[in-house]
Amino acid sequence: MQFSSSLLENAVSEFAKLPGIGKKTALRLVLHLLKQDTGDVNNFSEVIARMRSEIKFCQRCFNVADADICSICANSLRKQEIICVVENIRDVIAIESTQQFSGTYHVLGGVISPLDGIGPDQLTIESLVSRVQKEKTEELIFALNPTIQGDTTIYYIQKKLSPASIGHPLNLRVTTIARGIAFGGELEYADELTLGRSLQNRMPVDKYVSG
Amino acid sequence: MQFSSSLLENAVSEFAKLPGIGKKTALRLVLHLLKQDTGDVNNFSEVIARMRSEIKFCQRCFNVADADICSICANSLRKQEIICVVENIRDVIAIESTQQFSGTYHVLGGVISPLDGIGPDQLTIESLVSRVQKEKTEELIFALNPTIQGDTTIYYIQKKLSPASIGHPLNLRVTTIARGIAFGGELEYADELTLGRSLQNRMPVDKYVSG
Repeated sequence: MQFSSSLLENAVSEFAKLPGIGKKTALRLVLHLLKQDTGDVNNFSEVIARMRSEIKFCQRCFNVADADICSICANSLRKQEIICVVENIRDVIAIESTQQFSGTYHVLGGVISPLDGIGPDQLTIESLVSRVQKEKTEELIFALNPTIQGDTTIYYIQKKLSPASIGHPLNLRVTTIARGIAFGGELEYADELTLGRSLQNRMPVDKYVSG
Repeated sequence: MQFSSSLLENAVSEFAKLPGIGKKTALRLVLHLLKQDTGDVNNFSEVIARMRSEIKFCQRCFNVADADICSICANSLRKQEIICVVENIRDVIAIESTQQFSGTYHVLGGVISPLDGIGPDQLTIESLVSRVQKEKTEELIFALNPTIQGDTTIYYIQKKLSPASIGHPLNLRVTTIARGIAFGGELEYADELTLGRSLQNRMPVDKYVSG
């Protein structure tokens, strides 16, 4: 692409660095901004820069936060003794959107994946293990993606919390979110693993909570 | 969507204001920026703000420019006596990318469209008419989109340049870019108007320049 203005060219190439945004889309976005008021564009630019420089990570659960402790951990109405373990911030947002969970979170920052060079030390597992012991957590709900890496991570954390590892038994319930055929999903299109597992993990109809 | 950080929330809603970017895509972009170095994000933000506040429009052709005159108008290697009339900056970039045009441009800023409330006065037609007379332009190439509005605009400008309007005849060639079946396009899928017009505007094979 040929540009008659280097200011325009630089703005387009900055936008094109974003994931999923090519040169043509970048140009469309930049030309859109060019049509907006200078004040609005300055605001856009400032909000982005402030977000990056001022955002913090909660010292307790590693979720994004405006202060040292995030608004979920600081909320006394939430059940602090229940921790939902998730991979990343996006998962926190997804679960919060369901409005079905009133406990707190722990953001691992990924899952154990030796092939990608991610070991337990790069994740917040150590903090989780000491948090569970210190806070006398009652339930740990794993909400990780159903992959080999996710399952490995659950197994690793469970081992770290075993009496053999910490020297004494914990009064802790460890669960994982239900897996099976999605609501609205059709059986014939489900993959074999999901369908097979959902048969193995079948549950009594009277305990079943429907959407 | 529920956010635990207002900094994050504001950044997402700023991105979501851009055309074609929904809340989920905005979140993906913001989380991507959150993973980048603060310096890189500051640079992104500054380049966008500078683009909006410092960009100029060429006083001669109304293309975007870093100075009062754009780099195309200022380039003495380009044929200043040939003007290609386009609707917007995006069209300039598209034509420049072909590397087939060595003249200059005139950006109208739209086409005459009474239904959208766009009359000749909102466009740079007056400047074009006086530019053609002052600069003794030799050829005016219309590269407008083939719509009723585009054709109306061509007709209006031609009338403005007629001897009846300016009082004396101009030594000016007025052309429009060729319309017809696109290269690689298949006849059976072409719309009737395009196919019909391309039959009417058929040209001798020996004058035909193939891609």
